[in-house]
Amino acid sequence: MSETVTPTTPTAPAGAALEQSAREQDLTDRVVASFAGCEDARLRQVMQSLTRHLHAFIRDVRLTEAEWDAAIAFLTAARHLTDDKRQEFILLSDVLGASMQTIAVNNAAYKNATEATVFGPFFVADAPEIPRGGDIAGGAAGTPCWVEGTVTDTDGRPVPGARIEVWEADEDGFYDVQYDDDRVAGRAWLTADAQGAYAFWGLTPTPYPIPHDGPVGQLLAAVGRSPVRAAHLHFMVTAPGYRTLVTHIFVEGDPQLEIGDSVFGVKDSLIKRFEEQAPGTPTPDGRDLAGQAWARTRFDIVLAPATA
Amino acid sequence: MSETVTPTTPTAPAGAALEQSAREQDLTDRVVASFAGCEDARLRQVMQSLTRHLHAFIRDVRLTEAEWDAAIAFLTAARHLTDDKRQEFILLSDVLGASMQTIAVNNAAYKNATEATVFGPFFVADAPEIPRGGDIAGGAAGTPCWVEGTVTDTDGRPVPGARIEVWEADEDGFYDVQYDDDRVAGRAWLTADAQGAYAFWGLTPTPYPIPHDGPVGQLLAAVGRSPVRAAHLHFMVTAPGYRTLVTHIFVEGDPQLEIGDSVFGVKDSLIKRFEEQAPGTPTPDGRDLAGQAWARTRFDIVLAPATA
Repeated sequence: MSETVTPTTPTAPAGAALEQSAREQDLTDRVVASFAGCEDARLRQVMQSLTRHLHAFIRDVRLTEAEWDAAIAFLTAARHLTDDKRQEFILLSDVLGASMQTIAVNNAAYKNATEATVFGPFFVADAPEIPRGGDIAGGAAGTPCWVEGTVTDTDGRPVPGARIEVWEADEDGFYDVQYDDDRVAGRAWLTADAQGAYAFWGLTPTPYPIPHDGPVGQLLAAVGRSPVRAAHLHFMVTAPGYRTLVTHIFVEGDPQLEIGDSVFGVKDSLIKRFEEQAPGTPTPDGRDLAGQAWARTRFDIVLAPATA
Repeated sequence: MSETVTPTTPTAPAGAALEQSAREQDLTDRVVASFAGCEDARLRQVMQSLTRHLHAFIRDVRLTEAEWDAAIAFLTAARHLTDDKRQEFILLSDVLGASMQTIAVNNAAYKNATEATVFGPFFVADAPEIPRGGDIAGGAAGTPCWVEGTVTDTDGRPVPGARIEVWEADEDGFYDVQYDDDRVAGRAWLTADAQGAYAFWGLTPTPYPIPHDGPVGQLLAAVGRSPVRAAHLHFMVTAPGYRTLVTHIFVEGDPQLEIGDSVFGVKDSLIKRFEEQAPGTPTPDGRDLAGQAWARTRFDIVLAPATA
């Protein structure tokens, strides 16, 4: 380590960079080794990989101690905004694309199967059942939208009886669980018929921001990113023998598609045309909309086998 | 995508693995690109690197949705244990070696400069000053230990006036800030003399566990790791023109050194011999220990230049 050198400008002596790198790698190796005794092989694998990637991040960016302090302060601030109704840690995962990447690795590409996207925090298990052509709005405000399509396998064979859960925000961007009362609105489930067909009345989706009055919102502001989600309508489709599909459809022409969905849920294959219909245009099921404008869209759902 | 194939055993068709990999990489790329407009170049760099490493982790381990749920639940549980006195997020960083890796990248190896280690949560800024040979114990229980050494630069030149802060737990593993009252014990500061020499009375350090009644403790139990820290005595040494040194010394022969320090603070160069002295052995400064056994150790401190 060239101890005889007395640098007047104290630059690192030759070999110091190698020594430094060796010290950092040795530390990572020791942390990885500390999990070697874990009897749960999967937990061991996850923790060792987490360690390697976390350490690689710190080394790559040469994280400063002030930045480490800021990260701890961020998590500590996030805790204040996490309760039964608000989950800042999920928001953080969402805006880093970690939620969407988890969806991606758990829904392997399979032939022409419909792509999955984020589940989101607003699903409720006990939504009401509606018949074909029923209305999910439940009084929620917005433009009525006729949504129809089929549920098939990847060879185009119908999946009769597939259960289709749908949910969405109202035109002000609020889900029913965000209302002050206990109304059920903007959610329902129905089943595909013998030909795999389904249809219901919903609302044309509109963009809305994720909660952005906390540390995640501050992060988005600091990096110049929009907190707004592209307009979307949620689907969860289940049928025995098929992989459960959790997805959205998005609205072609929504400006937020260009700006960027704040949680990276958009797939090109999920962007659908919502055709606006002038007031008075006859509805597919003869429903009288009392002179309101309405829209219609089509979403043909293709399920992968459960074993895919 | 081979639409004519009708697999009876639905294995992924040729090309699906490539398509899947492309989808995952595209997602990572989009999240990285979402930070491109960040005007703070350093923040942009940190967030883009964090995104790449976080996504690589999720892809490498093929994180399941149940595991993602568990991670969110872990952070949510950690929030319940984070307040003015307890910081579960710092503990998490500590047991993953992230705190120590941050220390490592911020304290570049420099010639024979003393190595740094974790700061820990128990430093208090307004500890009392003691003269050379003073006692830091303040009534804390333990075996008296004479600690002496020098503070020099990397060429062996004394650093007179260097400020040496020292702090440690009592023999039950508690720092004074963990006591129920406001006693100051087990901490003090002193200065190196004109020859760079220093000496004080402390206590022979003993091992103690980090707080392990929360999610971090559960994690350590699940992976079969000890929550115990190797016995140590904290130092922080500052002098104008030198890089601040935050470090510990460890006790040669402490069994926890073999088991593993729970926060990875140990460096071989920081393990010191604590020589036990039989009751009645004359003390270096003539102090009368009333027949108590005592110990002595030596720690010569070498400071890197501030610009290293």
